[in-house]
Amino acid sequence: MKQVWENLQEIRTAAPLVHNITNYVVMNTTANALLAIGASPVMAHAVEEVEAMVGFARALVLNIGTLSSAWIEAMLRAGKAAKARSVPIVLDPVGAGATRLRTDTVLRLLDEATPAVIRGNASEIRALCDSLAITKGVDSTDSVDSALEAAHKLVERYSLVVSISGPTDIIVGKEQVSRVHNGSALMTRVTGMGCTASALTGAFLAVEESPFQAATQAMVTMGVAGELTAVRANGPGTFQVQFLDVLYALDRAELEARARVEIR
Amino acid sequence: MKQVWENLQEIRTAAPLVHNITNYVVMNTTANALLAIGASPVMAHAVEEVEAMVGFARALVLNIGTLSSAWIEAMLRAGKAAKARSVPIVLDPVGAGATRLRTDTVLRLLDEATPAVIRGNASEIRALCDSLAITKGVDSTDSVDSALEAAHKLVERYSLVVSISGPTDIIVGKEQVSRVHNGSALMTRVTGMGCTASALTGAFLAVEESPFQAATQAMVTMGVAGELTAVRANGPGTFQVQFLDVLYALDRAELEARARVEIR
Amino acid sequence: MKQVWENLQEIRTAAPLVHNITNYVVMNTTANALLAIGASPVMAHAVEEVEAMVGFARALVLNIGTLSSAWIEAMLRAGKAAKARSVPIVLDPVGAGATRLRTDTVLRLLDEATPAVIRGNASEIRALCDSLAITKGVDSTDSVDSALEAAHKLVERYSLVVSISGPTDIIVGKEQVSRVHNGSALMTRVTGMGCTASALTGAFLAVEESPFQAATQAMVTMGVAGELTAVRANGPGTFQVQFLDVLYALDRAELEARARVEIR
Repeated sequence: MKQVWENLQEIRTAAPLVHNITNYVVMNTTANALLAIGASPVMAHAVEEVEAMVGFARALVLNIGTLSSAWIEAMLRAGKAAKARSVPIVLDPVGAGATRLRTDTVLRLLDEATPAVIRGNASEIRALCDSLAITKGVDSTDSVDSALEAAHKLVERYSLVVSISGPTDIIVGKEQVSRVHNGSALMTRVTGMGCTASALTGAFLAVEESPFQAATQAMVTMGVAGELTAVRANGPGTFQVQFLDVLYALDRAELEARARVEIR
Repeated sequence: MKQVWENLQEIRTAAPLVHNITNYVVMNTTANALLAIGASPVMAHAVEEVEAMVGFARALVLNIGTLSSAWIEAMLRAGKAAKARSVPIVLDPVGAGATRLRTDTVLRLLDEATPAVIRGNASEIRALCDSLAITKGVDSTDSVDSALEAAHKLVERYSLVVSISGPTDIIVGKEQVSRVHNGSALMTRVTGMGCTASALTGAFLAVEESPFQAATQAMVTMGVAGELTAVRANGPGTFQVQFLDVLYALDRAELEARARVEIR
Repeated sequence: MKQVWENLQEIRTAAPLVHNITNYVVMNTTANALLAIGASPVMAHAVEEVEAMVGFARALVLNIGTLSSAWIEAMLRAGKAAKARSVPIVLDPVGAGATRLRTDTVLRLLDEATPAVIRGNASEIRALCDSLAITKGVDSTDSVDSALEAAHKLVERYSLVVSISGPTDIIVGKEQVSRVHNGSALMTRVTGMGCTASALTGAFLAVEESPFQAATQAMVTMGVAGELTAVRANGPGTFQVQFLDVLYALDRAELEARARVEIR
């Protein structure tokens, strides 16, 4: 199993192509985050070309942030093509639970595209589990505990990894759970930091065979970069910009000294 | 009637959800401006979900900057749902007058969605009035005067507030007119500052019952933040970013000391 | 023939309207780059309005970065309307060669819209030439040489100018070739710098009759601004933002002292 630094170096060296079908709000920032980390982003969503484009990619990122029927079709096609070619998929279920359209789209993608990782926040993960009517053993009132429980159900049902972002990021695999205690509160005041986490998860999946490791390492990279950025930023505007500078320049000493991960 | 500082504090405390159906150019920057001010932005435009999404919102922002037929349909549906649920609407008639498609779309939205506030520049407001063939008493050659006259006609016909941005922002209500003498010339060199003004008007509408006050307070907040940003920015690039930092950190003393509003 | 500084001044004075039908990723950054240089950007893609909008424009920028069928139709309509009104067109063939959809779209636009300038990277230019099955005299193994050869074939066939961006930008006209030795490696780590180059080419076409000169001057402006930005930026995030500041403030002494162009 490779460590986060080795994989980051491999991303920088190999510049793997990461195909994104993502929302309008974050296209620029996630493309820039992928470039800053060393990957090669492609944004393409036309139903006529997504299958061809996936053929060049080493990872596919599906993000439902600004959905419409043509985009759903494109995500399904790309997802199936990726599955057929063993291109690993990250699914970001933005707003799952808020509307039927979003929840249903995620469930279809889970069935038909078989993502390696879902990366969302606690309420999205809970909403997916609820919509599947997977009975919870204990009706937890604690939001993190209930999201964790929901994640375990999803992992079991879909054989994937669930990456829950929050003050502590929790990555749930079949046999292990990691907790990443990095990050900055300012990240919640910048649009699309979750989407960026999903994109970086795609970059790590491109170079790391274990989806559990890839998801964990992406969250460590996000969290450490977020901390380093928070020290120098004056607010959410400069944070968004300087975060890219930090990702670009992230060095081994900083990354390894700051990473606070528990894996059990 | 609450003051701008009280309402800004309420936005920060309550984090009202503001639903935006807006143009591609500014989605990232307006989402970030809403986050910076303390609101919770949602961007969603699928005809299948806009009505459901409006149900969670405390304000709806419709912006026609990059129009197409599917988006017009989404705006009409969201607008009607918002009307039915008394969710206040801000309409930004970007480019009204430039093409028939834009002007006609705005007129349909005025009829069917009944916005609380239209926020545009002088030429957009004049164009709307002209297209309605509302006869002007005096064919003013002064652009501000003719926009003001157009605004009064629109206010009368549609029972809404017209917020005209410019070197001096003019907000026209049924019984009062406010003039906001804040801002910076650099704001005209950054794309989407007008769209940001509309988004912030949405945030203020979410917490303030009077659309006239909400529109005025949003322009004061924009203008003061613009002045504070202009002092530190080196050009339009850093302006766009630092404007978010300033919005995020805006304090009572700065806001109240700098606000230059006349209400008559 | 006017020089780059004279044309930059004319852009700043006349603020020519540049109509862009471009990709979602770069809409904000290219609109801001056009504003920073002094032009007036319009982003509009609805089939119902593109022909009307072109009527106000002094240049049209077509960029296929995030294509779909409705956008192709819009580009064709806008392109034909621009041709009919002698509005000069820049075509950015993003990803040509990667998928059939992209290559075919570019070929249709070349036939039906007759752009004045194509601005792409070496592999896009080679891919276009290959797809036309224009036989190459020598099967060059050097990538720049083969792109240059491809460019000459395209120039001959379509009577346009080909602007190839790279470490050295090469602009190929019917009788002359210019080489621009400006720029910074950091530009490859910021998404959409190529798209920005295309947008600025549109701004120069709006004020300069010679497409060869306009394309060359746009690349000089990009390259010099890139060098000046690289000196102050801390990474790709601050680069993207400060590049706009530099464009906005670019003065004659800097521009002329740094420009390194050979024209033969």
